[in-house]
Amino acid sequence: MLNFDIHFPTRIHFGRGKIEELAREILVYGRRVLLVYGGGSIKRSGLYEQVVNIFDDFGITHLELSGVQPNPRISSVRQGVELCKEHEIELVLAVGGGSTIDCAKIIAAGAGYEGDAWDFFTRRARINYALPLGCILTLAATGSEMNGNAVISNKETEQKLGTGSTVLIPRFSILDPEYSFSVPPEQTAAGTVDIMSHVFEQYFSPTPGTFIQDRLAEAMLKTCIHYGPIALAEPDNYEARANLMWTGSLALNGLLGAGKRTDWATHDIEHEISALYDITHGLGLAILTPYWMHYVMDEVTAPRLADYARQVWSIEGTEDLIVARAGIKKTAEFFRSLHLAGSLSEIGVESDRLIEMAEKATAHGTLGSFKKLEFSDVLKILTNAFNGK
Amino acid sequence: MLNFDIHFPTRIHFGRGKIEELAREILVYGRRVLLVYGGGSIKRSGLYEQVVNIFDDFGITHLELSGVQPNPRISSVRQGVELCKEHEIELVLAVGGGSTIDCAKIIAAGAGYEGDAWDFFTRRARINYALPLGCILTLAATGSEMNGNAVISNKETEQKLGTGSTVLIPRFSILDPEYSFSVPPEQTAAGTVDIMSHVFEQYFSPTPGTFIQDRLAEAMLKTCIHYGPIALAEPDNYEARANLMWTGSLALNGLLGAGKRTDWATHDIEHEISALYDITHGLGLAILTPYWMHYVMDEVTAPRLADYARQVWSIEGTEDLIVARAGIKKTAEFFRSLHLAGSLSEIGVESDRLIEMAEKATAHGTLGSFKKLEFSDVLKILTNAFNGK
Repeated sequence: MLNFDIHFPTRIHFGRGKIEELAREILVYGRRVLLVYGGGSIKRSGLYEQVVNIFDDFGITHLELSGVQPNPRISSVRQGVELCKEHEIELVLAVGGGSTIDCAKIIAAGAGYEGDAWDFFTRRARINYALPLGCILTLAATGSEMNGNAVISNKETEQKLGTGSTVLIPRFSILDPEYSFSVPPEQTAAGTVDIMSHVFEQYFSPTPGTFIQDRLAEAMLKTCIHYGPIALAEPDNYEARANLMWTGSLALNGLLGAGKRTDWATHDIEHEISALYDITHGLGLAILTPYWMHYVMDEVTAPRLADYARQVWSIEGTEDLIVARAGIKKTAEFFRSLHLAGSLSEIGVESDRLIEMAEKATAHGTLGSFKKLEFSDVLKILTNAFNGK
Repeated sequence: MLNFDIHFPTRIHFGRGKIEELAREILVYGRRVLLVYGGGSIKRSGLYEQVVNIFDDFGITHLELSGVQPNPRISSVRQGVELCKEHEIELVLAVGGGSTIDCAKIIAAGAGYEGDAWDFFTRRARINYALPLGCILTLAATGSEMNGNAVISNKETEQKLGTGSTVLIPRFSILDPEYSFSVPPEQTAAGTVDIMSHVFEQYFSPTPGTFIQDRLAEAMLKTCIHYGPIALAEPDNYEARANLMWTGSLALNGLLGAGKRTDWATHDIEHEISALYDITHGLGLAILTPYWMHYVMDEVTAPRLADYARQVWSIEGTEDLIVARAGIKKTAEFFRSLHLAGSLSEIGVESDRLIEMAEKATAHGTLGSFKKLEFSDVLKILTNAFNGK
């Protein structure tokens, strides 16, 4: 196990009706709020009205940035930053899923920065300050509600880049599983895969002696495998939505990666796909993950992949390579059972852009740590994922 | 799953040499420290000297309260409170295991209270304020380094009582597994059981639908079962000490109990034993736990106990009662394999005091939630544990 420093500063309010904590949490920081949300789903569900009524009841004034898209754009961030600066906003409140929260994070950071917020992604500027941020989560997926990371897309440069800072960690997050009842099936499936992928990227590691972290990771994988199909079949199943939502937060709040080197190669590759094609992140991960697992399997990594197969899929056998292969097959089958595509060609990716993606993904060096990947490796994974075999 | 609010405010610095964070953490709060520790073990190990040198290097002045005992006394607390009040202490630093940390917590609370600190245990006063507290942990066991609970003994009244408040949660905790290399075998064993008992008390619950919490609990139990014997056999095994230490913190920081009713009957009963006999808490738990498991097993609870046996001990079978019994047997055998006593008679408890313990334990009502226990139930568990059968 490696040394680590960890801190979980977000106050979590979890469960039915927990919106009752909203006003008290906001008023710690002020009365002028920027409300950030996506499309009309929170208006259809009544959540928007509920939030605005609370604002009225407690004398909280607000401005709005709506229309935040999946794979949120730097253009939305810029609009939000403008509003914060003009109106002396004291807290940014994100209501939605990971895209909305990520967008709100960079708005909060940009509000205290004189330059352009894209600088945080090109490493021209570091994030040392941000307005306080609160979240009302409506979708179990990214874990953004309990960490300091954000991923933003820039359509002009065709880039999708990440950044992070402890000052971006939300001060509070309200997690009411009922808000995710209305999440459509494809987003429920993609969200489940996103959670699992966060676990995988921290679980598969070259660091030895991380028994507790690995068993915790398996606990989260089992939860996704158990409840993903239930949430698809019964969107209003509170138990399924609750288990997925809490697991989503725990999967990327630092707990699983503490004390070990993490990988993130699959995420890095997927970002290049969704930078060009604007596909759902979790869908891209579902397609790539089994091909990544297959590709990285060698004599060194097979015991670890076999461990996964044994612990999570209860596959028996003594031959690591065979057990590991069976586990990868189970993983791919599970993603297909959630009605997600199994190849990049199925979702409209063009074969003549794979080289460009592999180049961009490795522009700053090799990817991963469980197994290091160079340009040619990434291209092979993309090609296999394109062909679906 | 029930609603919950959760917050983990402690900054954790984990690993070899993490004492390097000490001065920076202290100086956030001030320069006048009360150093609280137990016997001479931190002097023998060189940790005391290391801490005092850091104080000197950074201009931190300190007073000391040493001699804090296992099952820490309210008399020690009173001495510490006096020192804080007289010398305008700004931070209390506990260096040791759970007893030292618990004592330091109540000193920190007492420093801001005009009355006697025992009032916090008799419910005459609530803890609403405490001096900031930091910890350097030397023993994996109680989890006190990441929560707001404290248990203190009063020799005059022959009581051992607990209290808690979010203001008692340590601001920072330094967890260096190497500090636990010198923990003697019986304390290593008792600490491992203490961690497992914290997991059990939250794992066995009447709340349905807590899949993620239950799988996380099993992850921690497996870690204790894997590394407890290794740490006993090889006291300097870093991997074992690290996994046990981090698991000890996670086992009682709120994570496992979030969203469910917890039980704590075994702890409540054990407190009555160690209030009278001053035995090591983990030893008392090791003796009681299997008898508690046996006693609470009925048609309602057997499936849950069988789940435990299947997930943690890999026991196969379809008959819940049989599987559950096998799991309980494994648990008892495991505790014995750590060279811990298997009955209360072995450790000098007298049979004619069992009634008194059962009466005190149930003086304020029934115990537990997985299965509610009245006086007669507690007496039967104590009697079985006394006889060792």
